[in-house]
Amino acid sequence: MSEQLNRFMDEQLPLLHTHFTELFKGKSYPEVLNEAMSYSVHAGGKRIRPLLVLAVLKDLQSTSQDAVQVAGAIELIHTYSLIHDDLPCMDDDDFRRGNPTNHVVFGEATAVLAADALQTLAFEELASLQHTDPTTILAILRAVSTASGAAGMVGGQILDMQGEGKQLTLTELEEIHVHKTGALLACCVESGALLANVSESVMQSLRIFSSNIGLAFQIKDDILDVTASTEQLGKTANKDTASAKSTYPALLGLEGAQAKLENHHKLALDALEEIGLGSSLLSQIADYIINRNA
Amino acid sequence: MSEQLNRFMDEQLPLLHTHFTELFKGKSYPEVLNEAMSYSVHAGGKRIRPLLVLAVLKDLQSTSQDAVQVAGAIELIHTYSLIHDDLPCMDDDDFRRGNPTNHVVFGEATAVLAADALQTLAFEELASLQHTDPTTILAILRAVSTASGAAGMVGGQILDMQGEGKQLTLTELEEIHVHKTGALLACCVESGALLANVSESVMQSLRIFSSNIGLAFQIKDDILDVTASTEQLGKTANKDTASAKSTYPALLGLEGAQAKLENHHKLALDALEEIGLGSSLLSQIADYIINRNA
Repeated sequence: MSEQLNRFMDEQLPLLHTHFTELFKGKSYPEVLNEAMSYSVHAGGKRIRPLLVLAVLKDLQSTSQDAVQVAGAIELIHTYSLIHDDLPCMDDDDFRRGNPTNHVVFGEATAVLAADALQTLAFEELASLQHTDPTTILAILRAVSTASGAAGMVGGQILDMQGEGKQLTLTELEEIHVHKTGALLACCVESGALLANVSESVMQSLRIFSSNIGLAFQIKDDILDVTASTEQLGKTANKDTASAKSTYPALLGLEGAQAKLENHHKLALDALEEIGLGSSLLSQIADYIINRNA
Repeated sequence: MSEQLNRFMDEQLPLLHTHFTELFKGKSYPEVLNEAMSYSVHAGGKRIRPLLVLAVLKDLQSTSQDAVQVAGAIELIHTYSLIHDDLPCMDDDDFRRGNPTNHVVFGEATAVLAADALQTLAFEELASLQHTDPTTILAILRAVSTASGAAGMVGGQILDMQGEGKQLTLTELEEIHVHKTGALLACCVESGALLANVSESVMQSLRIFSSNIGLAFQIKDDILDVTASTEQLGKTANKDTASAKSTYPALLGLEGAQAKLENHHKLALDALEEIGLGSSLLSQIADYIINRNA
């Protein structure tokens, strides 16, 4: 990871974590629900989504007092989706990021509800922004809801389930990932750009950037599932192979997947170059996505 | 049910159902997800929540082209909560409103996700209102998210779970219902009133009305569980007694519960009287809640 990105993360992530701590303090939630919600929000992870929101603002030389709250809200959505994904009736995962999953700690019923409430909280947080004009807030709300609902993330999870045990084409695999992970990643960049009040042409380039890093992110995940250890990943490695899941390495071979990864990386950087962000934080996040080993 | 309320329902509910039909038409959702979402939304029920939104506007002699969309959004929230409530890890109910529950028809994983997407859709719908000023939309979004999240409906479900098999005090029982059903019912009245742009003093009276019909609604539910048949209810009768659940009849006896029901009914009507709505649709909805037999 570049030194600049490292510094940016060191500076921004503590703000995000303080925000999360404050968020669950003094809330009149039933105690166990507060604990269950907070448990998964604080369980860590790469925080790539909030970083994208914050990085795009910084790259555009813009600031917003609501930036952390917007970044946090999208991470709440991501977190709720992980809790439901891990449920016995879904992926049935006992570990996530090296820790026991929510339902293992709090029981299934509480996990279902904690995730539900995290989704609600995300929208409550967005509707409560104090330093952004109402029209922009509504645009962000529409972006986040579209990206995370049936036309986006949740739709992608359904497609993913339907594809299990089937030999998918590359187009079908891409369709899954564009929805399942791509849409929410893109909405991070879009939300930051909305806070920065960018022109439509800049937004267009940022969308091209987003869709390419979204796919790159997933291809890299698939590659790591084959090449990394369970210890490195903090989750079960080789799970995709074990469950005969369609992945980029399975469809294209490891080298083919790597070539495709690099192609999307290049397209993402080209889009940034066009708007003068060739050596921006966003470009460094793209590099990080490609080069990470967990 | 009064003739006026009956006419109002005959006039308004088809608009709501057309709205729901349109809502799921032409959406780019994966087909099974669209079906699962639409299945529970169209499964019927009393539609008391949307009716409250629409009735308060009518009573206040106000109109809004967004009324049905707001009413529908809150019904989507209610519907998502029912799907998750019915899951095997929660209440494990196979029937709802006389029909097989969502997970029985579509499987657990799809049911979890369909409900998630219904919640998202509710917020997307609210953020997309076309005929309401952005500040009012945000106020409605805050009301709906607060009422339905960890401080409201979801919190109430957790309290309800925690109370299972325990002998609760009347205060504890009330705490559950104020959150579990009261908050969302109250937010229907509040959302309608926000669309009608009422004064704070009218809003105060409406809040007193709402909190009282919220409790009345639940007390009546508990009474019906004892006195009505499974056929009448479209769900298993005597379920509360069978599961030794704390209910108003169990705590106060059937007569005591009935007296409490009537007291809340009177307080609700008094609050309406104060703002000149003594013989309004809202008062007739209150009567209907008290007198219904399913």
